[in-house]
Amino acid sequence: MQLFYTPDIEPAHPQYFLSEEESKHAVRVLRLEAGSEVQLIDGRGGFYTAVIHDAHPKRTILNITSVVNGFNQRNHYLHLAVAPTKNIERLEWFLEKATEIGIDEISLIISHRSERKEVKTDRLNKIITAAIKQSIKAYHPVLNEPVKLGQLLQQPFNGQKFIAHCEPRDKLNLRDELALQGRYLVLIGPEGDFTPAEIESALQSGFKPITLGESRLRTETAALEACFEINFLNRL
Amino acid sequence: MQLFYTPDIEPAHPQYFLSEEESKHAVRVLRLEAGSEVQLIDGRGGFYTAVIHDAHPKRTILNITSVVNGFNQRNHYLHLAVAPTKNIERLEWFLEKATEIGIDEISLIISHRSERKEVKTDRLNKIITAAIKQSIKAYHPVLNEPVKLGQLLQQPFNGQKFIAHCEPRDKLNLRDELALQGRYLVLIGPEGDFTPAEIESALQSGFKPITLGESRLRTETAALEACFEINFLNRL
Repeated sequence: MQLFYTPDIEPAHPQYFLSEEESKHAVRVLRLEAGSEVQLIDGRGGFYTAVIHDAHPKRTILNITSVVNGFNQRNHYLHLAVAPTKNIERLEWFLEKATEIGIDEISLIISHRSERKEVKTDRLNKIITAAIKQSIKAYHPVLNEPVKLGQLLQQPFNGQKFIAHCEPRDKLNLRDELALQGRYLVLIGPEGDFTPAEIESALQSGFKPITLGESRLRTETAALEACFEINFLNRL
Repeated sequence: MQLFYTPDIEPAHPQYFLSEEESKHAVRVLRLEAGSEVQLIDGRGGFYTAVIHDAHPKRTILNITSVVNGFNQRNHYLHLAVAPTKNIERLEWFLEKATEIGIDEISLIISHRSERKEVKTDRLNKIITAAIKQSIKAYHPVLNEPVKLGQLLQQPFNGQKFIAHCEPRDKLNLRDELALQGRYLVLIGPEGDFTPAEIESALQSGFKPITLGESRLRTETAALEACFEINFLNRL
């Protein structure tokens, strides 16, 4: 399968022109010719099949032959808010894996103990795009610009809200709390965890405290565990 | 917590001498002094608390004050057999994450479509050791030397055997098949999957075919997904 990410495609239009970069890739690297079948994803759930009409190395013309909307749409909405890791590779790895497993929206939160306060989202978005192509997903997860925890707590969210932290307090299990096929916002703290004041503030904003098991997990592992648990429970 | 991995410790002995490297780390880097409390893990389930008797930079002497055996022992045994990835970093990530989440034994399998046939396990073992220290686990997962798939299929295994593959055949869900608190051997194929002949051979050797969900997952993500699922189901 030759898959292209084409976020600017118009579903109603019978033709599409690949960008100069994609045209070059299609014709010079993949050696595609007129008549070759390709697939397109628009990042909003549209999965297109097309045939190359003109294999032009700068402006390849495709004839759209079929469109599937809501391709492999998941039955829930997961927004994960995670503190960026000091080592950016750990965050990159998380984004790739979460995209493969299933996620809709990611916020990068700056909290009191965050060691990293600045993140370039361009590169991170490229990693997400590569992961949706690799795992054939028609929805592109949304990556928000970094936001302070206090701001995020104030944002309205229509769904269940959870906070995973390591303080020795009573915590709930997702399997007992999760309303299936719902909308979820999950907070994951930085290396060194949220402060007690931050946890208190989240609880007062309606976040329920959850545990992700007995193991001490790194930030990016905890985020992935939450992503895995929510996808798995919604498959049951 | 200052945690040392000391696989050669003798549980019955009241004292332990840190190696030259660990002594230097304890005294020169961590600046520990006589009277400081440290923790030791032996990789076989022993978790020791000790007090520094002599903070010698080459031969630090510890007095063992307490021992817990079977520290945080998991309620099941997971042996995962995975084809090493072409990009070795992907395998390294998997080993770190699987160790954090919970795994007992890893085999590296060489199959027909494996792009990587040789692996240096020394470096991989160091990654596992760092991960058990970071996540405070007293059991060190066992990493076996690479083995051909055919040989692995012939090895006796006292427990349930599963193979995760991508061929369009009937597959089972782990949640329906898993006997909880049991022993499991799970095969994960290479980039490009097992060949139909390899799958047939595994089925004839008593491996049950399983699915890890609808997403197309990379090798290391599939291996981690299996690890997640088995740990999660055994927590339910």
